[in-house]
Parts: sequence; C-alpha cells; structure tokens
Amino acid sequence: MTNWAGKKVLIAGGLGFIGSNLARRLVDLRAEVILVDSLIPQHGGDLRNIAGIENRVQFHKLDVREEAKIIPLLDRQDYLFNLVGQTCHLDSMHDPFTDLEINCSSQLSLLETVRKYHPAVKIIFASTRQIYGVPDYLPVDEAHPLHPVDTNGIHKMAGEWYHRLYQKIYGLRACILRLTNTYGPRMRTKDARQTFLGWWIHQILAGEKIKIFGTGKQLRDFTFVEDAVEALLMAASDEKADGQIFNLGGEGRVSLEELAELLVEIHGSGSYQIVPFPKDLKAIDIGDYYANYRFIQDRLGWRPKTGLKEGLKRTLDYCRESSQAKPAT
Amino acid sequence: MTNWAGKKVLIAGGLGFIGSNLARRLVDLRAEVILVDSLIPQHGGDLRNIAGIENRVQFHKLDVREEAKIIPLLDRQDYLFNLVGQTCHLDSMHDPFTDLEINCSSQLSLLETVRKYHPAVKIIFASTRQIYGVPDYLPVDEAHPLHPVDTNGIHKMAGEWYHRLYQKIYGLRACILRLTNTYGPRMRTKDARQTFLGWWIHQILAGEKIKIFGTGKQLRDFTFVEDAVEALLMAASDEKADGQIFNLGGEGRVSLEELAELLVEIHGSGSYQIVPFPKDLKAIDIGDYYANYRFIQDRLGWRPKTGLKEGLKRTLDYCRESSQAKPAT
Repeated sequence: MTNWAGKKVLIAGGLGFIGSNLARRLVDLRAEVILVDSLIPQHGGDLRNIAGIENRVQFHKLDVREEAKIIPLLDRQDYLFNLVGQTCHLDSMHDPFTDLEINCSSQLSLLETVRKYHPAVKIIFASTRQIYGVPDYLPVDEAHPLHPVDTNGIHKMAGEWYHRLYQKIYGLRACILRLTNTYGPRMRTKDARQTFLGWWIHQILAGEKIKIFGTGKQLRDFTFVEDAVEALLMAASDEKADGQIFNLGGEGRVSLEELAELLVEIHGSGSYQIVPFPKDLKAIDIGDYYANYRFIQDRLGWRPKTGLKEGLKRTLDYCRESSQAKPAT
Repeated sequence: MTNWAGKKVLIAGGLGFIGSNLARRLVDLRAEVILVDSLIPQHGGDLRNIAGIENRVQFHKLDVREEAKIIPLLDRQDYLFNLVGQTCHLDSMHDPFTDLEINCSSQLSLLETVRKYHPAVKIIFASTRQIYGVPDYLPVDEAHPLHPVDTNGIHKMAGEWYHRLYQKIYGLRACILRLTNTYGPRMRTKDARQTFLGWWIHQILAGEKIKIFGTGKQLRDFTFVEDAVEALLMAASDEKADGQIFNLGGEGRVSLEELAELLVEIHGSGSYQIVPFPKDLKAIDIGDYYANYRFIQDRLGWRPKTGLKEGLKRTLDYCRESSQAKPAT
C-alpha cells in the first residue's frame, strides 16, 4: 500500500457519505486532502460529515463543472477520487435532466479538465452495481451485461464509459469500482435517496416500523464503508488497478427481511412490516443482487472485513449519537 | 404494410439525409408529413433536401428541446420518426458537450414530451452500429455486447437506452433500428461528418484522389437510403416491431479499397490512394464491421434490395447533378 503521508489527494464529492469517510482515513494517514463538493441538498454532501477534521482538510464548495476553479485545485494532485454523483433512482425518473447534468455532464467536464490540464493524476471512479440492472445470473461478475433499469443507471453507465474511453484514448490513469449497497457512519438517513437502508435506520431510531417493500425475500449484499474506503485506497495504490473495473461486494448475502430482523435485534427494539411495492419503485426494482468480487480479491487483495452485524451495530451507534447531538434536519 | 394515405407523421431531424428521403417517400404515399429540424450547420439538415416537396410538407425549424413548440406539433400524430442526432465521431471527441446535448439531452426531452403529452404516438428511433464499437465477432447481431469507442457511441447508446426504458417503464410504443453506413442521394458530401463515403464522393467529383485511411482492407456493409427508408416504414407499420431492436445491413460486405475501385469504375475516372490513418481517427476506428440483419428479415420481412453498384451509381448521378445545379457550400 502507498505511504500516504504527504500525498496530495482531491476528493470530488468529498463531503458525501463515502467521500467524508475516505477523507477521515486519509487525514489519519497524513495525506494532504482537498475536498470539493457542491452540497446540493438532495445529495449526500453535508458539512457535519467532516466534523472534527475541518482543520485538517481544505474544503471548496463548488460544482466540478466550474472549470476555472477546479483547474488550480487539481494542480500537482497525485490522486483524484471521483465520488461525484446523484444516487437516487427514483429522483432520476422524476427529473432525468438533473440526473443527466450530475452523472454525465459533470463527469465529462471533470475528465476534460484532467485531460487538458492534469493528465498525470490518477483517477479512482466510484461506479455502481445499478448499471447491471436485473441480474441475468448470480453472483454478478464484471463481465455481466449492462442493462440498466432506470435513468440513473443509464447515466452512471455513460459516466463509467467516459472513464474507460479517456483511459483508452488519452491514456489517463483511471480505474473503476462498482459499488454495491454501502452503509456505515455518515450515510444519509433523512430519506431513502442514498439507500433504502438509510431510511430504515431513520425509521427504527424514530420508533417507527421498518417498511420492507415487496416480499422481503429480495437478496442483497452490503459493504461497510470502511471496507469501501479500503478498496478505494488499494485501487489508488496499485498500478495493477489501472484501466480495470472491479466489483465490490459483501461477505455473504442477506434477504431484506433478515436484514430488518438483524437491525431490530441489534437495536434491541423495533419491528418491521412487509408492504406492497409502490408502483414507481416496483417498475425500477432489480430483484435479487449480490456481487462476485473475486477479481479485486485476486488482483488487489481486497475483501470485505467487517461483518454485517458489526457494521450495522457501529452504524446504529453512530446514527443514535449524532441524532441526539444535533437537531434532525 | 400500413396504408399511409392520410396518416399523420412527424419526422424529427426531417431535413437530414435519411429524414428527407423518408419524407419524400411518405409524401408519395400521401401521408401528412411534418418535418422538424434545428438546421445546425455541422449536421445533416439542409433545406435543399426537400426541394420539390416544399409545398407538400410542413416544416418547422426548431430544436426538439423546445417543448412548448413541439407539444402542439405532436398532437394527434400517428408516428414519430426520431432521426435527431449528431453523427460525427470526431466532432464528438473534440466537443463532447455538444454531442451530449444533441444525442442525450435532446432524446430525453423528446421522450419526456411524448410520455407526458402524447403517449400514444409510435416512435421509430434511428440508432447506430457505432454503439457496438470494435466487433468481438462478425457478422454483428443484436446480442453483441455494446462497447463504444468514442463519445458519440456512448451518447447514442444512452439515447437508445432511454427509448428502451421509456418503452418498458411507461409503455411507450418504441422500436429501434441500428443503422450501418447509409448512403444515397442527399447524403452529406461537403465533409466526412456523416460518412467517410460522402467525403469520397466529394473527392472523386472534385477530381481529387480518394484518400483511404489505413490498409484499405477494412470491411464494411452499406445500406442504400431507400432500403433504410423501407425498414423505417416496415418497423412503423408492424406491431411485431414494438419494443424490439433491429440491425440493418447491406447485401454482402466490401473492403474500403474495393469500394474505392467501384466508385472509380462507376464514375469512369478518378483514382485513390491508401494513406496512414490520422492519429485521432485511428484511436476511434472500429476495424471491420458488417451486420447480421437476420432478425429484421425474419420478423418484419425486410432485406436490402439495392445492390452497391446500383446504389453508388444513383448516388453519384444525384451528387453530380446537384453540384452542377447549385454552388458548392
């Protein structure tokens, strides 16, 4: 692994859930960290996510399409973690144009800036399992066809293709991680825009019943955010990652009903109910999903280390404390 | 086949090469034809393409994103032929943002308008073989993986996915044709933005040497524009086309050198030379391509009817006459 001390790192989308966890880790490793975030309210960015490290990072509120501002910030950076993105599938259907702006236009702009002004920076791009759509087979490996089921998936797929293209045509050093459900401290819990699990955590902490849509039998895998951060760092560190696409995944898989039961058990109280899918969500549901992450395991040595029970406990503890410490927004 | 007499048809991109040929055919079939085109100079739209039928069609110069104007035009239309697009691969690399605007934002806007205001119209979308990228196998069928090699291919792929998504989620009646090199009267010959063949025709008519990039051995298939128009009409007419994706193709395939020889033979004079690929074009070249069009043949009964020699002769005759009739632009 790279010795991160003194390394210059820019995290785009750095105030979001994963970006801020990555920033904390990099600060601990004594990297020089610049965070860029547009702080769009519907997205994951939140100043509270960097509470305690404010003075150890540089933060710039801007849209990555503001080329004149982003060019000097990228100057002499060693690494660009590209976590820019709109993640909400339903929002992407209700407002496909904003999703296009964020997930395509922004990506293109960032890559054009890198190509023209800073072609030596190594890019690690956070893509998503959403681009696979409804799986043809399980577990899903990286060779699985891409057939997205919503506008978000189409645009994320295009965003990923830009990175592949700029790597191939212009020789940029880019690698791609396809993340599955990532969870942990600082995940968005005020609504289901980032993950349904975030909203479940809100429900259980508010003393409400967790609502599971569908049958409760749908299978998913989950990556604890520290494991996702580790994968990002390993992909950045290792030349064998350049030009590659890697699935992340979780240790085993779990049905949504089992997940709800586990949450109730860890929290020590609460309950859940299985309710019919809202029509608009059903239309873009992907059914069962879990990833084959053997490729990153074999090539970079990554595997998820945090079990679901431990990860959920730490997440709930964090959310409980932070909801007591600050007024809910 | 549909009895087209009195059918209400809107052709978006209707002043372009294929759109205007389609319009001519539909006028002959006594359909009521509305043409919409933004007439962007770098694209295919040209008022001269409807010379002789000006009084038998309605033409509106507008961008399909001008929702307030397009909504009333789509009112009670039976068919929407969606031929909107930027086709130049090289332009898409030099200015990916414009390509994004035309090939993604415009498509999304048109589909949103249809979904919200005119969901009953049947859409026939002109996609492209460019989204396959460098073929994994030949001939390429519709199951071939999509791995585009340029920004244009990425955006065209997204545009196609929008149609598939809106068909699946909102029940729009959409079908997709993936066109290969289409040629014929009214093709763009003032540069290579639409096809390299258009530029070759310019070269031979101007008494210049045809310049073949690469080895001259690259294989391609060609569809004469009347055959492409026939495919568009058959896809519109047949419910078995709804929700489907069809390759078009040509009768046989030909190497670029053979194609140049054929052009010289038909024209009765001229010559060609094989020159190295310009670097920017080489980077996005797809090598050999020819399509398997068995699916549309089996399902809709389409097959190309115009042989390459006859098609090229008619194209050259048209271009010769029109270049004599009007000053070159």
